[in-house]
Amino acid sequence: MVAGSGLIATLGSRIQRVIGRLPRRVFVVTSPEIWALWGQTFCASFSEPPIVLFLAAGEKHKTMASVEKLLRQMVAAGGDRGSLLIAFGGGIVGDVGGFTAAIFMRGIPYVQAPTTFLAQVDSSVGGKTGVNLPEGKNLVGSFHHPRAVFADIGVLGTLPDRELRAGLMESVKAGIIRDRTLVRFMEEHAEEILHRDARALERVIAASIRMKADVVNKDERESGLRMILNFGHTIGHAIEQVTRYKVLLHGEAVGWGMIAALYIAHRRRTITTSQAERMEKLIHLYGPLPPLKLSAARLVAATGADKKNVGGVRRFVLPIGIGDAGVVEDVTVTELEAAAKFMLARAAETAGSAESQPGGKRVAAPEPVIATAGR
Amino acid sequence: MVAGSGLIATLGSRIQRVIGRLPRRVFVVTSPEIWALWGQTFCASFSEPPIVLFLAAGEKHKTMASVEKLLRQMVAAGGDRGSLLIAFGGGIVGDVGGFTAAIFMRGIPYVQAPTTFLAQVDSSVGGKTGVNLPEGKNLVGSFHHPRAVFADIGVLGTLPDRELRAGLMESVKAGIIRDRTLVRFMEEHAEEILHRDARALERVIAASIRMKADVVNKDERESGLRMILNFGHTIGHAIEQVTRYKVLLHGEAVGWGMIAALYIAHRRRTITTSQAERMEKLIHLYGPLPPLKLSAARLVAATGADKKNVGGVRRFVLPIGIGDAGVVEDVTVTELEAAAKFMLARAAETAGSAESQPGGKRVAAPEPVIATAGR
Repeated sequence: MVAGSGLIATLGSRIQRVIGRLPRRVFVVTSPEIWALWGQTFCASFSEPPIVLFLAAGEKHKTMASVEKLLRQMVAAGGDRGSLLIAFGGGIVGDVGGFTAAIFMRGIPYVQAPTTFLAQVDSSVGGKTGVNLPEGKNLVGSFHHPRAVFADIGVLGTLPDRELRAGLMESVKAGIIRDRTLVRFMEEHAEEILHRDARALERVIAASIRMKADVVNKDERESGLRMILNFGHTIGHAIEQVTRYKVLLHGEAVGWGMIAALYIAHRRRTITTSQAERMEKLIHLYGPLPPLKLSAARLVAATGADKKNVGGVRRFVLPIGIGDAGVVEDVTVTELEAAAKFMLARAAETAGSAESQPGGKRVAAPEPVIATAGR
Repeated sequence: MVAGSGLIATLGSRIQRVIGRLPRRVFVVTSPEIWALWGQTFCASFSEPPIVLFLAAGEKHKTMASVEKLLRQMVAAGGDRGSLLIAFGGGIVGDVGGFTAAIFMRGIPYVQAPTTFLAQVDSSVGGKTGVNLPEGKNLVGSFHHPRAVFADIGVLGTLPDRELRAGLMESVKAGIIRDRTLVRFMEEHAEEILHRDARALERVIAASIRMKADVVNKDERESGLRMILNFGHTIGHAIEQVTRYKVLLHGEAVGWGMIAALYIAHRRRTITTSQAERMEKLIHLYGPLPPLKLSAARLVAATGADKKNVGGVRRFVLPIGIGDAGVVEDVTVTELEAAAKFMLARAAETAGSAESQPGGKRVAAPEPVIATAGR
């Protein structure tokens, strides 16, 4: 894993340093948007231009059909067991590209060059690749570790602001569950970070990756520590599911989910009032989170903890102070409902404040998309 | 790997002995034909009947689309990361079932219960799984080792005669390249083997598996020894390709390919005349091989060694005496053409003799399907 500036412009020689001579066929899986912005820079360091394969943007293209199309294009272009694949794009490009590399001729080496903040933090650890089925997300895939990951901070310069902020929610999460110092850094340097100061971003990315790698490594025997990475995800996933993954970015849903979880943690006194306020303030600092108009009952049902299933409430991650977290199994439906209502009330306030301060210093809220439970 | 009789009737408890308690969902991927014959026996040893997923027979169903269909059926039936898959059928069921297990939820355990002679010999070693693309065979897949392989000799009782004989070609190959004792056993016990005497079959299967495992294990560092497993395959593959995989079974094509390779070995004096005659006799003993009507030039072109590519003749496996083999890289187009012509002349004789001895003791030849190069 290398994080820094100017990596894409020098990628060819950097990859050679890792794997030796470049093979006869080098494939780049990327999106048309990223390639339009960065294709020329990308090609500069390759003596022979790589073969570009496009994957259209969007979760709906994260399918077996896309993978088969890529595989066939690779065969047609003369790909063989020695070929190399570079996944150059966001999380979907990384997942689909990595899975394509995992199964082409029973596996060829690949390199990740993630272009979103979220992918830069995520793709370095775990080697998870895969696609969706109509029945659900990430149901198909392989563990296939990239030979190297090059996270170019400079590329984040063209990342839409909303995506940067959503990605930063994962770093907020990292700080809250495991890294008090990161919390303080993100509180004190929000302006540099949001203005994409390379040094500030590099520090946040490095700390987030370190946290994740540390947790995953310590959990190799499935001790359960890894579960804490799901902080904010129980209700976050429920929001995504109820809005059919079409309204919020993943990080935004996790942001709201963390606010709901803070409420439960506060009620259970694993965090103090001032800690709860401080952490919620940090989440909003990297917002705005889009407004929500959902039914609390529907959200609770989507967590799998509905009334038919009272005994089966899933494991839930709660912060313990700032910089630590634990897993509990006894969160009740009543608690979940109260937390969802608290979160939805906050969302209503946010929507109001975004409307009343259109000229404020904060970046404009994303288009207020309102999903009702009945949609 | 367990080879023996009566394994299918006791599979449930045998699997439990390997993996512990059976999971909540056990899936069986099989063909309708096999299930009609053996489904009841199969289910006898499971306290809860497994969930049966059918894969239609034939190479044309060895596709990504089939895999996606199986994956979706597994999700719909409540499959999860703890589920088990059993591949119960021939080589295609094993390849497709194994690949499905490899990528379902990033990999679940699976068990092979091969029902053809060829699959029993092949599926025990290497962990290769995969499917075809329209561009070519086995271009997509994973290495995913089965938790156990149960080769039930009894199931071979319902295997069509032609398939048994084609499968036995792989054992003939095993003997010629690596196991003189197996050659002698197959010469002396052809009648028992072809009448499916359990003990004789078990011995041939065990020896064939041992040979393959031995070669693959010794070749873990890619020393090249594994190449000898391709004896008969250079011209065998060319025959399959020119006839578009529709006319001969794989073992039959390899049978003819071995005869062509024996010709080259004899001309190069790596085998004597009497050795060549003895090995060819053994091949025919496990025939009849279907007649061929092809052009020698077309076959040679299909090996990738056509005139445009004189310098690039591929590696070619030649027997050295009986029970040993080596790899050469200098086989010329002229030699290949002469070998193909010799083989095609033999094929013409076989076709003649099959017609002239319709009431002979040998099992009837398969329907004489004649493929011309132009088809």
